[in-house]
Amino acid sequence: MSPFPPAGGEAELEEGDVFTPRFDADGLIGCITLDAKDGTVLMFAHMNAEALRLTLDTGIAHYWSRSRQKLWRKGDTSGQQQKIVEIRTDCDQDVLLMKVVPGGDGGACHTGRRSCFYRTVRLGPGATKLGFEAPGA
Amino acid sequence: MSPFPPAGGEAELEEGDVFTPRFDADGLIGCITLDAKDGTVLMFAHMNAEALRLTLDTGIAHYWSRSRQKLWRKGDTSGQQQKIVEIRTDCDQDVLLMKVVPGGDGGACHTGRRSCFYRTVRLGPGATKLGFEAPGA
Repeated sequence: MSPFPPAGGEAELEEGDVFTPRFDADGLIGCITLDAKDGTVLMFAHMNAEALRLTLDTGIAHYWSRSRQKLWRKGDTSGQQQKIVEIRTDCDQDVLLMKVVPGGDGGACHTGRRSCFYRTVRLGPGATKLGFEAPGA
Repeated sequence: MSPFPPAGGEAELEEGDVFTPRFDADGLIGCITLDAKDGTVLMFAHMNAEALRLTLDTGIAHYWSRSRQKLWRKGDTSGQQQKIVEIRTDCDQDVLLMKVVPGGDGGACHTGRRSCFYRTVRLGPGATKLGFEAPGA
C-alpha cells in the first residue's frame, strides 16, 4: 500500500513526478483500458501491486481477477494479449488509463464482443432498461 | 444494493436488457466519463444509488465524493456541469461509461486541466517516474 497522503502531501500527489499509485483497502487499483488505435474503451479491470509491476516491466497487461482471486495475464486463454502503448494516472493517482494494442481478434470482452461496454442505459425518469449496440459495432 | 447474481443469473446480467448496476461493499459504482466531442477520457469518479438515480432522471452528472462523503453535482462550484449524452455499462454491470458535454471551460479536473489523466507513467523495469502532458493538450 502506498502511504497517503504521500510525504509531499496533496501537491506532490497531484503535481509531482513520482508514481505513487493509491491502492484501495483490498490492495487494488482500477484500470481503464483503451484501444490505442482509436481510443475505444475496451474494458475496466483491477490490478494489484504485482500485476502493475509485471505490466510496467513487461509491457503486457496483467490484471488481478477479483472473481477468480488470481493474477491474470490478459490473453493467455483468449489470445487477446494487450501490448501497452501508454499508461497514465489521474490527479490523485487512484486509477490508471492504458492505451493498448489488443492481440488475437482485437477484442477484449469474454462475451466475444470487442468492448465490454456493449449496452446503453436508457435515460429519463423510470427508465431502467438496457439497449444493445448493433452487432459488429 | 443490487442482488448478485441477479434472478436470471450470469446470462441475465450479461445479456439481459434490465439495468442491475452492481454497487460495491460501500454502495458505490465507478464511472468513466468521456467528452462526447472526441472521446477523451476526462475523469473517473464514483456514484452511489442516489447519484445514479439523479443522473438518470435529470441528464446531469451527479457523483458521490468519497473524500467529502457527500453527493456532488459536478459543476455546482466549478461551472463544469456535465450534460449526459449517453450512459453505458459493462458486461457484468459493475462500472459505467458516460459520454458528456462539459460546461464552463470544457474541462473536468479540479487542477485546472481538461482531463484528470495529465500524467504518463514511464514504462520499463525500475521506471516509476511520471511525465507531464504538454500544457494545453
